[in-house]
This record gives sequence, structure tokens and C-alpha cells, in this order.
Amino acid sequence: MSIASSPQAETARLIVRRQFYTFAEPPNQMVLDSGARLGPITLAYETIGQLNADRSNAVLILHACSGDAHVAGYSSESDTRPGWWDNMVGPGKAIDTNIYFVICSNILGSCVGSSGPASINPATCDFYGLSFPMVTIGDMVRAQKHLIEHLGIRKLMALIGGSVGGMQVLQWCVDYPEMVRSAIPLATTSRHSAQAIAFNEVARQAIMADPAWNHGNYYDGPGPAHGLAVARMIGHVTYLSDAAMREKFGRRLHSSSLSFNFGGDFEVESYLHHQGKKFVDRFDANSLLYITKAADYFDLGRDGSHQLIRPELAKVPFLVLSFSSDWLYPTYQSKAIVAALKKNGSDVSFCEIEAQWGHDAFLLPNDNMNRLVSGFLARIYHAHCI
Amino acid sequence: MSIASSPQAETARLIVRRQFYTFAEPPNQMVLDSGARLGPITLAYETIGQLNADRSNAVLILHACSGDAHVAGYSSESDTRPGWWDNMVGPGKAIDTNIYFVICSNILGSCVGSSGPASINPATCDFYGLSFPMVTIGDMVRAQKHLIEHLGIRKLMALIGGSVGGMQVLQWCVDYPEMVRSAIPLATTSRHSAQAIAFNEVARQAIMADPAWNHGNYYDGPGPAHGLAVARMIGHVTYLSDAAMREKFGRRLHSSSLSFNFGGDFEVESYLHHQGKKFVDRFDANSLLYITKAADYFDLGRDGSHQLIRPELAKVPFLVLSFSSDWLYPTYQSKAIVAALKKNGSDVSFCEIEAQWGHDAFLLPNDNMNRLVSGFLARIYHAHCI
Repeated sequence: MSIASSPQAETARLIVRRQFYTFAEPPNQMVLDSGARLGPITLAYETIGQLNADRSNAVLILHACSGDAHVAGYSSESDTRPGWWDNMVGPGKAIDTNIYFVICSNILGSCVGSSGPASINPATCDFYGLSFPMVTIGDMVRAQKHLIEHLGIRKLMALIGGSVGGMQVLQWCVDYPEMVRSAIPLATTSRHSAQAIAFNEVARQAIMADPAWNHGNYYDGPGPAHGLAVARMIGHVTYLSDAAMREKFGRRLHSSSLSFNFGGDFEVESYLHHQGKKFVDRFDANSLLYITKAADYFDLGRDGSHQLIRPELAKVPFLVLSFSSDWLYPTYQSKAIVAALKKNGSDVSFCEIEAQWGHDAFLLPNDNMNRLVSGFLARIYHAHCI
Repeated sequence: MSIASSPQAETARLIVRRQFYTFAEPPNQMVLDSGARLGPITLAYETIGQLNADRSNAVLILHACSGDAHVAGYSSESDTRPGWWDNMVGPGKAIDTNIYFVICSNILGSCVGSSGPASINPATCDFYGLSFPMVTIGDMVRAQKHLIEHLGIRKLMALIGGSVGGMQVLQWCVDYPEMVRSAIPLATTSRHSAQAIAFNEVARQAIMADPAWNHGNYYDGPGPAHGLAVARMIGHVTYLSDAAMREKFGRRLHSSSLSFNFGGDFEVESYLHHQGKKFVDRFDANSLLYITKAADYFDLGRDGSHQLIRPELAKVPFLVLSFSSDWLYPTYQSKAIVAALKKNGSDVSFCEIEAQWGHDAFLLPNDNMNRLVSGFLARIYHAHCI
């Protein structure tokens, strides 16, 4: 569009720079759920908007498995790709940075600025690799709490996240309910299912089967590119859906006739190859092992003993959203979250959004999601922050 | 059970031995869909029961991706595992070998006795490997036709098969309708979907990413065991279902507590590891490449131009069965088969069988499947064969 290259659009470009916070310096390491101690810990984070005077307008966005702190805007004037949720976050958007102070941090165990297996262990001056301790969703949230306190925020106006980000939303509510004014878990689960574990384990096996993985010690070499690409392809099949793939690719060939060889004939194959290749260039294989394992360990319990059933959450409003074609974390799993929360007498809104793009739907522009999220946030904001 | 070791049970044991048929000797090689020529071709096959005097009681069973000719009974007195569909096939069973003459052959491209990439190319005295030509479902069926003619059968009383076996049933009906008296496609599709192609391609990439695969030249070495195991694990996730995995494994650990390492914590992981390992011991990686590719190429067309719409099929009764929890070849794909066949004015019975075990359901004991198949076969038999 011509407007994109107009001087006006250029000056309106939202530039967001990455920041870092380091804490848990020895001997005050953070104790992890496994019992191991980890420190120092660095979290990469970005903020957009202004914290208001009474620090009551902070919205913490939690990213999914392979996400990062760069949720919206551009990292520089020359950056060509906006953040991963730019359609939802920014001035005048559903998560309106003219009103809210948005924070997003790269999760513990990841590789996009925060401490993880690809970081240098200051005690050895070498890469952690598999000596990095296993982290859980609880550990990720515990680290985020350090950052939030560092930013001088005692209570978050809202937490919002999809997928593994949604797990963090729920874990925050369980571990630090006094710091949560409202919460929006999207396209997520409170109990990682056997099928979701199965897909993650196959992805991990694909990485670990690659000789270049070398038990996690590959940082001085080329790394397990083949295994990581296969792992990512598996992920991408689960992020779409049967109907989404039929719509997006069908049986279209990427050339004019069948090849009768193993190079790949169909557009859906080219798509997967491309996604696998792109991921290898940007993500650390060990980080994928750690984060998928954290997701697999995630379990807030079932029915009567669900950890979301707790009196401290009785006054926390929730907006729970699922997406009709999401078969990785299907609607019945969101309903289990709602059922637990309802036992607190909480104010819980729930909607299954009709969307055809499978689990990916929460990342894509969606008018209904926009309206529900912006309306919910406005309600919380007007009740508490002005 | 004590009866299993009684002398009576021993004598009742059904012993079925593998046989071989070789044809298409040069210069009369078989012409494949790709245009390549292949020969000699050997098919391994087994038969159970007696062909009646007018050769009208033959039932051809078509196996799925990793199946073989050994459909039922034991291969010897000391064999401990019966054939892959022993619950359905045998004396007094749904496919009653006291009445029907059952034939099952290992498909072209496989590795359990029939010609495939792991066979020796007589022209070079070396393994074919990737020099084996690509084969289609049509080629598999063309080879089976040679076998059926060799057995002196001009018309098959029934064809029955699930999954890739169901594709062969449909291909038989399209290519040789004059040889088909009735047909039972189970848990299958007439158009391999983008999602099914995607899963197959990820499995192939897992194999080809293994350095031991060596472009298909591994028959003098250990072979791509890691890649093949990962490929099989992907398959097994698609053969079950979310509900089946929840029921079968849930989040049960295989030891008493979380390991906080990458060895695998959950029973579903142990299951996948076991299935992967078991498959490596019995199946050829190149064969999996060829057979999955044949499935991906399978496309009888859509709607108005569907190849199942043809006058020759007007008098062929069909029984089409899908399984409610099968998400690899979901019920809507069976309904597309039914819709095409109905345009012939054919006698088409269709049932979606309630079953919780996903795509695997067609291989497992199921009273409804038993009753529907045995009833359908009895009807065809009584109308034509006595």
C-alpha cells in the first residue's frame, strides 16, 4: 500500500528496544522446582507505553514456546518485520499501548536474550548446554516476578498469553494471585495432554537423534540443524489443522507434475521445509528441548483438586478464549479451566472463537479476539485504574 | 488360559505359510504409473481356506502401510504372534476361512517378501535402494492383479482393506471393476489430505535427516535406526487420538517422580520409544519412504470428476466404514467416497463405527465391525456363490 512508504507512516513507526535485567547473583541463586539453584539469571524484556503514576496499568504479555520479548513494533528503523503480536499490541490496538504499559519478557530457558542452555555459565565460562537445569512453567513465572518487582509494579492490571504463554498466565494466578488483577489465558490448557506430550517427545527425539546434537554440546559447531528442522515441522503440523491445511494448500503441487522422487511435490511440503529451515536460523535446539519439557510437566491438577480453585482468585476476573479449530489445546481444555475458576465464584467470561487456522489462530488477526480482549481490558482499566 | 496349552487347542492352531509369485521377467517388465519399467517382480502372499469349484469365493485382503501378507494364523508351530488381523480372519471369524478363500499379499515396494528398495536388483546384483522406481497405489494394484490371475481367479468375491489397504480397494474398483464383485474400504480416503501428506513428509524427513540413511544406500551398514524410529513415533501419534491417549496413558509417569532430565517421564513417551524401536527391528526405512509417497500421490479426484463415478461400478455393492475417533482419515473422507459411489446408483452401505482408538480402531477387535463385515460378506456369498 502506498501509505506504508509515506513519510507520515515512517514517523509513526513504533520502535521498541530490548532491555535486560539480571538477578539471582550468587550466592542468592533462584531455587527451581527441581531443587536446583540457578544464577545469575538474565531476562530480556521489552516495554511499550507508559507506566501510570500509581503503576496500575501494567499488562504482562507471556509468549509461547518459540516466541520472544519482541511482541510488537520494530527493533530499529531498518527492521523489516514487526513483533510477533503486532496485530494485537500497539497504539490504538486491542492491547492499546496509548493506555496500557505493556511488558513482555523472553522466558527462562529460551535463547532470545534470556538465560538458557545456549547462555554462558559464568561459573565455567562455557556454554551451559545440558548442564542448564531443567526449568518448569513455575520457574519461568518466578523469574518474571523478579522482573515485575524490579519494574516497581506490585500488581499487574492484566496478564495475557496464548499456548505456553497461557500456561504462564495460569501459573501466575496460582503462585502470585495477590499480584494479578485480571487474566486472559488463550488457546491453552491447565494440564498438558498425553497427545501434546507425545508430539513434544517426537520433536525432542528428532533433535536428539541428530548426531550433531552431541548431547547438547554443539555450540562450537554447526548444531543439529536437520533434527531441529524436523522438530519444527512436527510443531507446524500441530499449529494448523486438517481444515486449515486443506484451505491453505489442498493437494496443490509446487511444480507442474508429480516428481516421482523424494524431493517433495506438494505445496504443504514446501511450507514445512521452509518453516523448518527458517527456525534453524533463529532458534536453539536445546532451548526447544527445555521449553517443550516445561510444557509437558505443566499440570495444575484435575477436577476437585485443581490448583486454580483457591479463594485468592475469587475476585480476579478472567477471560478464557479457545479457538474452534485448535486441536492441540482443544476447547474442552479451556472449559476445564473455566469449570475450576467457576468454583471460586470468580467472574469468568469464556468464548470459543470460530476460527479456521487451528492453534495458530490466536496469533493471527481476528476481529472477535480483538473485541473481546480490548473490551475486557477496558472494563478492568475503568474499574481500577482511573 | 489353560485351554491354550491343551492338545485340542494345539491341533486347532491355524498355520499359514508364506508363498511367492514372481512375474514381469525381462523383457516383459511391468510398466509403472511413472513410466518406468520394473521386473522381475516378486509378491509374497498367503492364502487361507479353499477356493471353491467355480472360484467364486475369493476375498482379497489389502494391508496398510507397514503390514504384510501374514494376515492371520501362525507361520509355524513355534510362532508366538498371530497375523495382523487375526481377530477378523480365520475359521468361524468375520472373514470366515471355512467359507471364503482369503488371499493377502505384501504390497509392491514393501520389505516383507515382496519386491522393494531392500530387494536385490538382478540386473546389478546389488540392493535397489533409491534406484527402485517410485510406485503408486495403482502400481501395487496392478501387481496384485498378476497374482490374482496367477491363482486362476477371474472375479474377486470381495476386497477389503483399511487405511492404505482401503486405498488399494478403491483403486482396484477404478482400474479393474470387472474383477470386483464387492468392496469394503475401511478407515480410508479417496484423496490423501494435506494434513496426511504433512505427517508423511515429516516422517520421511526424519529418515532422510539421519546420516546413516546415506541417500538410501545403507544395506551394508546399520541403517537409519534413529530416523526410522522417529518416523514411526510420528505415525503412532496419528494412529491414536487425543481421547485414546488420554484413556490409555493420561499423564501417568513410568517412574515414581519427575526425572528433570530428557530420558522421558511419561508412559506415553515409553510407548512411543517402544513402538519406534520395535519398528526398526522389522521394517525397512526406504520402504517406508516409498509407501508413504504412494499414499500421498493417491487421489481419485473430487466431486464431479471423482474416478469412483463410473457405470461399471453400478452393480458393485460397497460397505464403507469409518471410525468416529479416526482423525487421520476422518469420517467426512469416507462420506466423500460414499457420495461418489451413490452417483453410480450403487448399493452402498455406510457406517461410522463408534470407537475410541483413533485410526488404529480398524485393526482392533470391534463387535460392530465384525457384524457389519460378516453380514455383508454373507449377503454377497449367498447371492453369488452358492
